[in-house]
Amino acid sequence: MKNNRRSFLKQIAAAIGGAACAKYLTSCTSASAAEPAVEGDKSLAGKFVTPECLQGMPIHATFLDEVSWDIPHQNWGPVEWDKDFATMKKMGIDTVVLIRAGLGSWIAAPFESVMACRDDIMYPPLDLVEMFLTLADKHDMKFYFGVYDSGYFWHIGEYQKEIDVNLALIDEVWKKYGHHKSFAGWYLSQEVSRRTRNISTIMAEMGKHAKEVSGNLPVMISPYIHGVKTDQVMSGDQATTVEEHEREWNEILGNLQGAVDILAFQDGQVNYGELYDYLKVNKALADKYGMRCWSNVESFDRDMPIRFLPIKWEKLLYKLDAARRAGMEDIITFEYSHFMSPNSAYSQAGHLYNRYREHFNITD
Amino acid sequence: MKNNRRSFLKQIAAAIGGAACAKYLTSCTSASAAEPAVEGDKSLAGKFVTPECLQGMPIHATFLDEVSWDIPHQNWGPVEWDKDFATMKKMGIDTVVLIRAGLGSWIAAPFESVMACRDDIMYPPLDLVEMFLTLADKHDMKFYFGVYDSGYFWHIGEYQKEIDVNLALIDEVWKKYGHHKSFAGWYLSQEVSRRTRNISTIMAEMGKHAKEVSGNLPVMISPYIHGVKTDQVMSGDQATTVEEHEREWNEILGNLQGAVDILAFQDGQVNYGELYDYLKVNKALADKYGMRCWSNVESFDRDMPIRFLPIKWEKLLYKLDAARRAGMEDIITFEYSHFMSPNSAYSQAGHLYNRYREHFNITD
Amino acid sequence: MKNNRRSFLKQIAAAIGGAACAKYLTSCTSASAAEPAVEGDKSLAGKFVTPECLQGMPIHATFLDEVSWDIPHQNWGPVEWDKDFATMKKMGIDTVVLIRAGLGSWIAAPFESVMACRDDIMYPPLDLVEMFLTLADKHDMKFYFGVYDSGYFWHIGEYQKEIDVNLALIDEVWKKYGHHKSFAGWYLSQEVSRRTRNISTIMAEMGKHAKEVSGNLPVMISPYIHGVKTDQVMSGDQATTVEEHEREWNEILGNLQGAVDILAFQDGQVNYGELYDYLKVNKALADKYGMRCWSNVESFDRDMPIRFLPIKWEKLLYKLDAARRAGMEDIITFEYSHFMSPNSAYSQAGHLYNRYREHFNITD
Repeated sequence: MKNNRRSFLKQIAAAIGGAACAKYLTSCTSASAAEPAVEGDKSLAGKFVTPECLQGMPIHATFLDEVSWDIPHQNWGPVEWDKDFATMKKMGIDTVVLIRAGLGSWIAAPFESVMACRDDIMYPPLDLVEMFLTLADKHDMKFYFGVYDSGYFWHIGEYQKEIDVNLALIDEVWKKYGHHKSFAGWYLSQEVSRRTRNISTIMAEMGKHAKEVSGNLPVMISPYIHGVKTDQVMSGDQATTVEEHEREWNEILGNLQGAVDILAFQDGQVNYGELYDYLKVNKALADKYGMRCWSNVESFDRDMPIRFLPIKWEKLLYKLDAARRAGMEDIITFEYSHFMSPNSAYSQAGHLYNRYREHFNITD
Repeated sequence: MKNNRRSFLKQIAAAIGGAACAKYLTSCTSASAAEPAVEGDKSLAGKFVTPECLQGMPIHATFLDEVSWDIPHQNWGPVEWDKDFATMKKMGIDTVVLIRAGLGSWIAAPFESVMACRDDIMYPPLDLVEMFLTLADKHDMKFYFGVYDSGYFWHIGEYQKEIDVNLALIDEVWKKYGHHKSFAGWYLSQEVSRRTRNISTIMAEMGKHAKEVSGNLPVMISPYIHGVKTDQVMSGDQATTVEEHEREWNEILGNLQGAVDILAFQDGQVNYGELYDYLKVNKALADKYGMRCWSNVESFDRDMPIRFLPIKWEKLLYKLDAARRAGMEDIITFEYSHFMSPNSAYSQAGHLYNRYREHFNITD
Repeated sequence: MKNNRRSFLKQIAAAIGGAACAKYLTSCTSASAAEPAVEGDKSLAGKFVTPECLQGMPIHATFLDEVSWDIPHQNWGPVEWDKDFATMKKMGIDTVVLIRAGLGSWIAAPFESVMACRDDIMYPPLDLVEMFLTLADKHDMKFYFGVYDSGYFWHIGEYQKEIDVNLALIDEVWKKYGHHKSFAGWYLSQEVSRRTRNISTIMAEMGKHAKEVSGNLPVMISPYIHGVKTDQVMSGDQATTVEEHEREWNEILGNLQGAVDILAFQDGQVNYGELYDYLKVNKALADKYGMRCWSNVESFDRDMPIRFLPIKWEKLLYKLDAARRAGMEDIITFEYSHFMSPNSAYSQAGHLYNRYREHFNITD
């Protein structure tokens, strides 16, 4: 469809040549500034809170999403990470967990044991383990090392290879990095929702070995619930009921006694209304097997078309409140730097940081 | 595939230990700054405008996307909202419309009527209605209250429940909030594109009641066109023709006379080349039934893989020009704070704000 | 499920009215600031580099994504573009390539030849060609003009129409803009991965004519590899092998001798481990037909759910290293302003810019 031609604009444009015609901006210096000078009235902070507003429990740990599965990289270097560790402390976080030493071909540091187990490993530009431990030492934080996930061996039945490379990795890592005062624990990176792929054997072997070499440092896992928001169920698979979840995890955890100390289920794959019931089951299972029960409270939003941006504060508060009522010992989040940090590329995260600090009355 | 080993780098690295080897940066203080000192030449502003550049009509209203369906939350508190209302005024916006009092389990304020109608309502942390009305009072703006969308009752045939909870909500809201000088109208939140789900009955009942309790304040609706960019048609459904659209909406609007004052169709679900024809039809229908005709000019882009980021200025201008030529009385946008504001997490929105202000010659 | 009611909060709230109850923030002036005062320790810059870190080759060219296919617009005006050209120079970029004069109904400037070839062209608000050439002149850069992609004629077999409108466009553009000192070449915008849609004929005709009218300025193309990350293969099509790719492109390029000077394949549609082999094949083909071989090193990440955000530095380095080893003459990237610029809406791009500058030891 043709655009209407307006002859008067043509005449004006002809008269003033290449400059903007009269209907348009001729001097717009202030308009071209992206930042308005106006600020919000700070006396409004904390107002409009409802009488029965929920009450959360605080977050003390975060994952470090290296090597990432599905979150676009912020491309920070050591200077930016140092800055972010400082803001974590200001929010009350004192524990960082490297989510995985590697995923498939990509690794977080030049681990000899991983480079030896397959011929398609990409040599990394930085030693992120040395970097994170250096920063955790500096900021008086605890660091947990997440093992290598081949994304391959344990999916094709070769679970012994998954175990073997990781036993070697655990030895190598403890020898090279164990001297750091912040080195405080281990994280088993293979994530499942059901009793599958020999996960009990894999985790039991890795967990036991990690504890043996490191003087019994704690081992954490963060599996997920086979709920309505998982990729599998969204692709047509059936969600488990609370009872089925309890049954399968009773089996798995029974095999992990002594190998796993902290059970921190991801909390985002079930509907909000179902969460409390699952948390109570997870707590009971942890108690039964002598494990500490945390909740991995996801700080990203699974309900939006964009996968993923920071979660809405109201939802985060709801989940922290549910965790508190269900008796969780502590909270870890996936994950501070992208989804709760004032340094995040997503400024919704910086505002979430402020809403969180207001809720817990944290001032600088 | 193995990476090539370069022995010379190994030697250098061995010589200088943990520091960056000679090929890499040893002192990069300036390079680590995220912000370059260089600025653009402001005398270029307004240049390169084409001789027959289109001419838009201004936007005077925006939705407030609470409670949101599909836009990730910016996690603002009252201070940030105050700041944003101020920038709205600088763009010429004087009307804000709360898009819906609630969606399913989530509500914008602790409405007794909604909390009573189902047992899975999440208790909200803030009273957003009080907050928005306070800010609208402060900034001399008009506020329209959007009703509750259960996302459920009217989809399963229980439309009377949808009506009943909203009649009670309208009473509750007018009683509690109606004293605000900025309380200027109502918005019926249920969105449809076709004659479906007893929408005429639902809207007629809610609209009439809202006008009765509030001394006849105006009622607005913002349905959409069953076009090629709707979820339904993109999933395989057939788009309506202009004639079919006119036929169905002639029926619906005939039933809404006296219950609805402002008809503001969403403008984004049809191809750009089709828009003008639909706008003319909507205008004729509005005239026929004594309604005021606005266009809801979407300021987000439906054509990109990321759903959704701010729209390209060229496309926004095209739609504002089409609305002007079709005789729209006014423009509302979905939605300023995410997609046109200098405070948005999406800085493309701040630049869109500047392009808009340049076009309409708005300076500070 | 009902939320728990806490009577003590009710009492406190009743006591202090609308203000935040004691558990919440009453004075949070510092917490409401989005920016923390803490900075990272700059002496950490450049630390933790691994002994065998890969070595890239530098990027000297970028596409300008006008008119865009799938990247949301940043809504910059001439002032913002001027600022961005300046930062490009600081990174070593000296060549900008307008990716396409138009796509379907949308055009980058009011080209008479394009507006004449179909009746649904949208009249553009700015003359982007004049703007980019003005800025390229100012910043001593080279500018390549990308032709018009109807997105239609050559897909329905009417390839002669695609050729005809572009021959007319080339004449029009050279006549109107060719005087600019920065006008340094042409880019043929139709992108294919296989021998399809008469691409050889289309490109040969356009390339030859462009060189004829402009005193033999160079012509660039940037096709892609029919690999695992293409839309087609992700939708079920079969990826080509390296041999099949070589065979088809040997045919196509044989027909383009004398019409195309620079062959710059996109590098993102194959797995990282495959890339080197494809680059070697592309280099051999370019040598065989007397063409210069560049790599179009994509600076966005194809592996993440969000399509697309800036690429991870580690991956960009990997591809620059592979290009160097494969003997590429130079590198162009898609595309600096969104994915590598400190001015990008995606701040991951600004950090990528810094990682790049650190690697190549570029200081201000």
